[in-house]
Amino acid sequence: MSLLYCNKTRESIMTEVKGRIVIQQCKSASLKLPVAEGQNSEMVDIGRGMVVFVCFLDGASEDTVEHLIKHITNIRLTEEEESGRRVSICETEGDVLLVPQATLGGKMKGRSMQYHNNVDKVVGEGLYRSLCRGVREAVEGVSGGSVKCGVYGARQVLSTTTNGPFTHIIEV
Amino acid sequence: MSLLYCNKTRESIMTEVKGRIVIQQCKSASLKLPVAEGQNSEMVDIGRGMVVFVCFLDGASEDTVEHLIKHITNIRLTEEEESGRRVSICETEGDVLLVPQATLGGKMKGRSMQYHNNVDKVVGEGLYRSLCRGVREAVEGVSGGSVKCGVYGARQVLSTTTNGPFTHIIEV
Repeated sequence: MSLLYCNKTRESIMTEVKGRIVIQQCKSASLKLPVAEGQNSEMVDIGRGMVVFVCFLDGASEDTVEHLIKHITNIRLTEEEESGRRVSICETEGDVLLVPQATLGGKMKGRSMQYHNNVDKVVGEGLYRSLCRGVREAVEGVSGGSVKCGVYGARQVLSTTTNGPFTHIIEV
Repeated sequence: MSLLYCNKTRESIMTEVKGRIVIQQCKSASLKLPVAEGQNSEMVDIGRGMVVFVCFLDGASEDTVEHLIKHITNIRLTEEEESGRRVSICETEGDVLLVPQATLGGKMKGRSMQYHNNVDKVVGEGLYRSLCRGVREAVEGVSGGSVKCGVYGARQVLSTTTNGPFTHIIEV
C-alpha cells in the first residue's frame, strides 16, 4: 500500500483518546475535600494501594468509563507484599483513590497549557461518578480493599507516601 | 491530497515520542536514595516546587534533553503564592525534584505492561545526568530554587505533600 499523504498527525491521533489515567502505587495517600466556609476540612485516606488520576476528553462516554474500570481493576501493577510479584489491585487487599485531574488533558501552547480537548464539565462529572461506582463495585466486591473518591472540579490537596510510585499512563 | 492508506497508527506516532515527563506541583517532596547494605539511607528533599518524573524512549538523544530542559524551566505551571498566577519555576524560588521513571514508557499488553520502547539503560542514564545538569544550570542560575535528583534505575521511594498536584504530561 503506497502512502500518498497521511493526514494523521499526532494531534489527530491524540484526539482519538477519550480517557487518560495516570496510576501511581502508594503506601498511603490522603486527599483534603473542599468544604463550605467555616466548616472543618474533611479528609479521605487510603492505605496501601494506588492513586489513579483521571481525565475525560472530548467524546468520552460510558464506554470510555467501562474500559477504564477494566484496566484499573485488571492491570498488574500492584506489588504483592510476600512475593514482590506485580498483580492487579483486586488480587491484593489494596485500596484505590480516584483523583479527578482535568489537567491531564493539557496541551502545550508556547509556555502555557490549553485544555480545549477536555470534556464538558457536567458530562465529565457524570462520567467520574460512574467510574467511582464501577471501580468500587469491582474492588470492594472482590477484595477487602476500599475505593475512595475526590470532588470533581475542586482543587485536589493530595499527599502520598510510596515505596516507589511506579507511575504508568493508560489511554483509552 | 488524497489519502490512499495511512499506516500511521497510534503505535507508530507514539514511537515518535522520545521523551515523556509527568510534572506534579508540590509543597514538599522527599526521595530516599538507595545505599549499600548496612549504611544509613540518604534522603533528598525539596520544598515548594515540582516533581518531574522522567522517561527516555528509543531514539532519545541530547536533543531530546534540550527540549525537556526548555519545557521544564519555561512551562507556566507553578502557582505564584501572592497572585495565584501560574508562572514558570524560574519565576519563583521553587525547587525541582527530577525522578527517573522508566515505567512511563510502559504499554499495555493484556493485563501486563511492556517496556519494549524504552531507551537502553546506559544511554538513558547518560541522558538523565545531562538533564539534571541542564535543569540545575537553568534553575539555580536564575532563581533561589534548588534542583535535586534521584538515582537512575533504582526504586524511587518518594513521598509528597501538595496543594493540588496539577498533574501534566509533556512529550517531545
